[in-house]
Amino acid sequence: MKFVSAQDEQGLFVGLLNEAEDQVLPLGRTEEKMTGFASLPASMAECIAMGEEFIEKAQAVAAWAGEHRAEEGAYLPLTGLTLLAPIPRPSKNIFCVGKNYAEHAVELGSKEDIPEDVIIFTKASTSVIGPKQPIPLHSEVTKELDYEGELAVVIGKEGKGIKQEDALDHVFGYTIINDVTARDLQSRHKQYFIGKSLDGSCPMGPWIVHASSIADPNQLNIETRVNGEIRQSSNTRQLIFPIAKIIEELSKGMTLEPGDVIATGTPAGVGKGMKPPSFLASGDMVEITVEGIGTLSNPVR
Amino acid sequence: MKFVSAQDEQGLFVGLLNEAEDQVLPLGRTEEKMTGFASLPASMAECIAMGEEFIEKAQAVAAWAGEHRAEEGAYLPLTGLTLLAPIPRPSKNIFCVGKNYAEHAVELGSKEDIPEDVIIFTKASTSVIGPKQPIPLHSEVTKELDYEGELAVVIGKEGKGIKQEDALDHVFGYTIINDVTARDLQSRHKQYFIGKSLDGSCPMGPWIVHASSIADPNQLNIETRVNGEIRQSSNTRQLIFPIAKIIEELSKGMTLEPGDVIATGTPAGVGKGMKPPSFLASGDMVEITVEGIGTLSNPVR
Repeated sequence: MKFVSAQDEQGLFVGLLNEAEDQVLPLGRTEEKMTGFASLPASMAECIAMGEEFIEKAQAVAAWAGEHRAEEGAYLPLTGLTLLAPIPRPSKNIFCVGKNYAEHAVELGSKEDIPEDVIIFTKASTSVIGPKQPIPLHSEVTKELDYEGELAVVIGKEGKGIKQEDALDHVFGYTIINDVTARDLQSRHKQYFIGKSLDGSCPMGPWIVHASSIADPNQLNIETRVNGEIRQSSNTRQLIFPIAKIIEELSKGMTLEPGDVIATGTPAGVGKGMKPPSFLASGDMVEITVEGIGTLSNPVR
Repeated sequence: MKFVSAQDEQGLFVGLLNEAEDQVLPLGRTEEKMTGFASLPASMAECIAMGEEFIEKAQAVAAWAGEHRAEEGAYLPLTGLTLLAPIPRPSKNIFCVGKNYAEHAVELGSKEDIPEDVIIFTKASTSVIGPKQPIPLHSEVTKELDYEGELAVVIGKEGKGIKQEDALDHVFGYTIINDVTARDLQSRHKQYFIGKSLDGSCPMGPWIVHASSIADPNQLNIETRVNGEIRQSSNTRQLIFPIAKIIEELSKGMTLEPGDVIATGTPAGVGKGMKPPSFLASGDMVEITVEGIGTLSNPVR
């Protein structure tokens, strides 16, 4: 199951993408046709907070729409919709793991930079943009804007002190994040936050794949292309701290909540690691593909 | 004007503290008595987002309550209320400035650690607690829990690319934050976020003083006491990056929003800087006083 946050002339809604990935079932609106009442919220975060009930209702609505498809025209063509970031405005900053692929830690420094303990920083919740939305170049503030393709985890169930073995039970699903980074600001300000939080520096999407549809999130190919050229190509099995470990570490004394988003780190191949370094420029197109999820594409402007 | 977020048996409300600081005027409820309709929200963040209209309405309600005081019993005794953090759940992480007093930078390192560019990290929005609420010791996770008394700025007006000379126009008011820090986690995880974001590690309050009541926020005495012993004693004129500069730096390419909270940094005198270091223990009482604002007190448990 793939869930989108989408918008059309009737407003914002949460939709279910069909298998062919060309049509979207608006869940609340279809539920209303089915039962006379839309109990499913228009906000993805609120849907996720419903827990298992959301999945059950989404499945019931999809089953009903499958039976009544021709009559009701319930599915909308994807091309007629604007996809937003699946969680357009998280209720707190996005959690990000730093240097979680050994080769990336080395390309930005040396083997000494491979972390022994998980490194966590955040991106401001205002930095989130959706698929296809332009990444602002912010040339008045940075000369070194860079991409970072990442698998992102969306938390489904509140928890604190979560053990590794239970951690994946707290995951609602997975999406893709481009952890766009102003390298000059990142190094100048020491703590990463400023260099990671420019408006529009957190493209997210194109949708959330429900956890039940991903057999093993630690076995996914991940690839980033800039103007078609492959820059990053790895697999999430290379994560130094795998997803369950990240959740265990983050939730030690800190409550994770439904709708929280965790970007799991980026593989080697960022622009700053190239010789010579190559940063994003206006007109560039950044595409990040994660196996089993899809492709997040954003132009730079 | 001092604004509180408070709770009684009728629920949460935003209130205006009287001059003697012993009574609170619940604004929405009193407005309802006055006009028959409560337009003022029960949430401080929503009040702040109203802009100048909030202050005008609050003043009108207070004037009316002053005239009708005896008849209406509009003011509630402070002792009968539970004060919450003025913004109990910010809509994003709390912004924090690191090493913004030179002597504090030195006590945790050396003169080399005095920053040339502002250092910003964040605390999870789940870490916020109110005045008098206990700070959890989290002894299963940290052995080095420490206090940091700080002046905090509450943003009142949205902005990006704000210049220093305009920055204070974007401030709604001021409060106090205890930037409670797990020193062992802070150093082990490199980026500060984990060591700064344990549940309950961001006491905030006791109220927000409106910017119009503070002549110069860069001239305020600040003092932290642990069990009555003075540990930190400084003045905000010692800030390396004064408030307007922090706002200018933060808003370069990143939109600041009404209700955002910025902790401006802590002076020398934290537990880790003592010889030998002295960390918080169960039963300790931490009190932070900022001139013109008040005192934020929290026990440790």
